[in-house]
Amino acid sequence: MCDREAVVKSPGSIANLGPGFDVLAVALSGLHDLVHVKASPGNGVVRVYSDVPVLAGSSNNAYAVAVKSLEKFKWLSSCDIEIYVRKGVPVSVGLGSSGATASGAAFALSLIAGSVDEETVLGLAGEGERFVSGVAHYDNVAASLLGGVVIVDTKYKKAYKIEVPREIRVGVVIPETGVRTERKTAFARSVLPDKIDLETHVRQSSSLAKLVYGLIKGELRLVGKAISEDEVCEPSRSKLIPFYKEIKEVALREGAYGFNIAGAGPSVFYIHEDLDEINRIGGVILDFLRSKGVKASFLASSFSNRGVEVVASG
Amino acid sequence: MCDREAVVKSPGSIANLGPGFDVLAVALSGLHDLVHVKASPGNGVVRVYSDVPVLAGSSNNAYAVAVKSLEKFKWLSSCDIEIYVRKGVPVSVGLGSSGATASGAAFALSLIAGSVDEETVLGLAGEGERFVSGVAHYDNVAASLLGGVVIVDTKYKKAYKIEVPREIRVGVVIPETGVRTERKTAFARSVLPDKIDLETHVRQSSSLAKLVYGLIKGELRLVGKAISEDEVCEPSRSKLIPFYKEIKEVALREGAYGFNIAGAGPSVFYIHEDLDEINRIGGVILDFLRSKGVKASFLASSFSNRGVEVVASG
Repeated sequence: MCDREAVVKSPGSIANLGPGFDVLAVALSGLHDLVHVKASPGNGVVRVYSDVPVLAGSSNNAYAVAVKSLEKFKWLSSCDIEIYVRKGVPVSVGLGSSGATASGAAFALSLIAGSVDEETVLGLAGEGERFVSGVAHYDNVAASLLGGVVIVDTKYKKAYKIEVPREIRVGVVIPETGVRTERKTAFARSVLPDKIDLETHVRQSSSLAKLVYGLIKGELRLVGKAISEDEVCEPSRSKLIPFYKEIKEVALREGAYGFNIAGAGPSVFYIHEDLDEINRIGGVILDFLRSKGVKASFLASSFSNRGVEVVASG
Repeated sequence: MCDREAVVKSPGSIANLGPGFDVLAVALSGLHDLVHVKASPGNGVVRVYSDVPVLAGSSNNAYAVAVKSLEKFKWLSSCDIEIYVRKGVPVSVGLGSSGATASGAAFALSLIAGSVDEETVLGLAGEGERFVSGVAHYDNVAASLLGGVVIVDTKYKKAYKIEVPREIRVGVVIPETGVRTERKTAFARSVLPDKIDLETHVRQSSSLAKLVYGLIKGELRLVGKAISEDEVCEPSRSKLIPFYKEIKEVALREGAYGFNIAGAGPSVFYIHEDLDEINRIGGVILDFLRSKGVKASFLASSFSNRGVEVVASG
């Protein structure tokens, strides 16, 4: 049985989307990890290789996913597992890099084990997130796995997929902050408030509900407005991003429909329907940051309805 | 100009729907206030009559709505306003009675003033709610006005309407609690926590997002699950309702898809697709309450896509 392999492509993602902390995430086009899992006869040894040196070996969350998979799928423990991760998603910038690897690994391992059940794959991928950030949050992994915008059901370890009915383009600006380690997510969680006011909760709920509504209906300007609203994470996390307030003002003034922090940051993102506008606004933001002495990079993407895809298996 | 009248029908509503505190509400079928507004030459005197004696005169929130309307629509101040309210929505039990009257009055007055603009009507109706509970909350009034399930945009004083795509039946049980005054809503707000944990906020957000998703998609069992989840209001408000926990258990065990407090209570509601089941489950709950010595009444309704409707105008 231990003579199988699977290669999957797993997209990066943006979690939170403004008001949806730990609940919403969206898969991105044009940013993928390639995860190649090989099972061969052995006794449960896991080896992970990556083209990003710091992510090789047991420090890669695919390692944690594989260890959990060996516990879950008993017969795999008579195999050795080799995993090759080719990173396409930028690491530790808020674009769901760890989630993409974890989802890809979980999916590929489940495929090899012969049991691709959504809840199981989600659970395994979540263990990869726990390994990275200390919390098994499911937003990024669900988006990578299913594609589209996902709503995480925190109670039942499930996710509901919203197929985005129209093109939503995304611009991402990644400022260099100096803080760029795999502990970044845990740190970005530590700055959040323990408690929030009931009134804040109500306003955040309102933003979240209209975001979900706008996404399903494809009402892009409403989506943008809602994305720009976050009173729970943005106030504290934005302080970790150079010139955040100014960049947001620039983006919205230049016509972006919505703007916020990508996941735990430090990347920021904005949306529009038109790729030319995405590129133009990105240029304006980069110019602004350059004038302030901040180095940053830019990439264009879009909300994608495609999740993990099998490239090869056998 | 001051020789106009309008008669409108305005539905009752259920606010919150579990996790949507101050954000979601739904209009109900089969429960309406009839609001008849007459303008005649005069100088801004407002008189309100109601078939419910305690709601006659300036204690009726239609009075507050009319006073605000006179400020808003300047030319109306050369009219006297008479308003007749025939109550069809039970008063002070959590079924949006004040919201139905306020929306009906605001709509009829705007119609007479010749300017039916959604934001203006919402604003005026909200003043009716402020008069009753001290807070201009827009959930019930938006549902009464627009019909369907409404998402209140707390930032822009707007509401987004979800047209419910399939029949969702509602059973309402109204226990007698002794507390049955127009101050009830203010009291039910006073028992809520000032602050909530971030984790609670995340779980509540998850429930809310899946509720909005389920409503738009017409996925009734998902809607029911989400409706049953509320960690913000239910824990404290349920203590004001006799045998709440037990009734909820009975309803869900008997097959209700979801169950929670209607608005600020003390009514409780549950949903199902089948009217026979709604009636049967209502009977089981009433029997249970009777066995505990609690008097209660029951009514059957459904989520309605119809809001305020003009019966006559001229």
